[in-house]
Amino acid sequence: MTERDWDALGRQVTQWIKEAGAQLRASLSTPLEISEKSAHNDLVTNMDRHIEKFLIGKIRAAYPEDRIVSEEGFGDGAVDTKGVLWLLDPIDGTLNFVMQKRFFAVSIGIYEEGEGRAAFIYDVMADELFHCICGRGAYQNTKKLAALTSVTIEDSLIDLSATWLKPNRLIHEEIMTEIVKRCSGTRAYGAASLELAYVAAGYLDAYFTMRLSPWDYGAGLILLREVGGSYSRAEGQPLNILSKTSVLAARPGLHHFIAEHVCKQVQGGRFIRELDGGHNH
Amino acid sequence: MTERDWDALGRQVTQWIKEAGAQLRASLSTPLEISEKSAHNDLVTNMDRHIEKFLIGKIRAAYPEDRIVSEEGFGDGAVDTKGVLWLLDPIDGTLNFVMQKRFFAVSIGIYEEGEGRAAFIYDVMADELFHCICGRGAYQNTKKLAALTSVTIEDSLIDLSATWLKPNRLIHEEIMTEIVKRCSGTRAYGAASLELAYVAAGYLDAYFTMRLSPWDYGAGLILLREVGGSYSRAEGQPLNILSKTSVLAARPGLHHFIAEHVCKQVQGGRFIRELDGGHNH
Repeated sequence: MTERDWDALGRQVTQWIKEAGAQLRASLSTPLEISEKSAHNDLVTNMDRHIEKFLIGKIRAAYPEDRIVSEEGFGDGAVDTKGVLWLLDPIDGTLNFVMQKRFFAVSIGIYEEGEGRAAFIYDVMADELFHCICGRGAYQNTKKLAALTSVTIEDSLIDLSATWLKPNRLIHEEIMTEIVKRCSGTRAYGAASLELAYVAAGYLDAYFTMRLSPWDYGAGLILLREVGGSYSRAEGQPLNILSKTSVLAARPGLHHFIAEHVCKQVQGGRFIRELDGGHNH
Repeated sequence: MTERDWDALGRQVTQWIKEAGAQLRASLSTPLEISEKSAHNDLVTNMDRHIEKFLIGKIRAAYPEDRIVSEEGFGDGAVDTKGVLWLLDPIDGTLNFVMQKRFFAVSIGIYEEGEGRAAFIYDVMADELFHCICGRGAYQNTKKLAALTSVTIEDSLIDLSATWLKPNRLIHEEIMTEIVKRCSGTRAYGAASLELAYVAAGYLDAYFTMRLSPWDYGAGLILLREVGGSYSRAEGQPLNILSKTSVLAARPGLHHFIAEHVCKQVQGGRFIRELDGGHNH
């Protein structure tokens, strides 16, 4: 295997993702075809499918040996992390796309032998691209993101959906109570890739969810690591990039603090359930 | 009293608020002076004070007989709604201003004899001005906002801070559980004036909070009413524009649905507490 020219790849993907963005912006002036997937609020539109096919076409033409794991299923799927793997979400935040016509993103994370190599998260309506080639710094458009410093729980803004604070199947609703009460404030934007990019950019100090798929977090975790952020499952275990999993992503010290808090809650008898069945309680 | 030229006022306020925005953007490249007010996450900066004084200077010079109620206290205060009253927040979303350097707004609502007459909410970093002169339509920059149509709870996006879903002094933490579980999703942006503007613009279907001050909601409620939205206290009672109060703002049918839900919960024995002491349980 010859070493890949990651800079060239970065230029290509940036062009593709901006083209996808232009198509998405243009689509907002015509009616969408919307259908439900697993649940009432799990939507897919004709544009999710169209953009996924468009990007997969570009990737396959340029990198025919790579594999692609994508939300709408036009990729290859993958059971292991061998070779170069693209984790692709054509529209992250589909509910925002449909209902708000903004605050959604195209997300592309690229791994090689399981290690993050490049990430691209494009907030289409804000024309804001978070991106990195690993080892060369992370960027918000042309602005280089600073390395993340530590913060206390009291000074932190935490992104957390209300779903996890009310009775649900995946986490006891009291586990996060102390975190919510002690932090400066909570936010919820409804587009995981952007929420992870916001942690990387320092707009948020932590992001917590019990249910995320590889295409949702693939790029965000790469971006976060590039600026010194930490991530894991809710209780601090390493995260398998091919799993539907909980994700705790944060500034380094805060990550440890929250993971330790969740662990103690679970040791005290409160449940957490991972969708892939791993590490259950 | 001669009839005021509201169009001329609209042009003036738009110019003032854009000037304030330019000063705020410029301030982001210099260190802020930050101090705490009532609590760790209740911040005020030198820029809150500076922008408030700047805008009050403009208002007093142009409309010397009007009264001003403003967050940092350089206005007149007011014990009644006689004459023309300006509700002014120089920086709504101060925590976002300090921590994110975006997603904050300058908010100005103008009432005459207690009736909304004009509203201006300026998202400084997005350069997005939500505004209306009552009776002439509401606008997002130059785009006219559509009249709000109805939506079911299942199809709705609801803005609600996590604060109200965990034990707190103002609302029993279970009151909103069913609403959170039935709706399509929840969001939380941390800047009330913008969250109300988002309901008016159809980006959100409802906004709910137990604690808001006149300068936070003054402009947003005017904008919302202009597009046919409804608002009240949490249980549906009329809201006094000089009170710290709960606020439920939503599309018309959804507003009734949520207010009725809250009422039933309170009738069932769960508590709600208004900060001004009105309508306690």
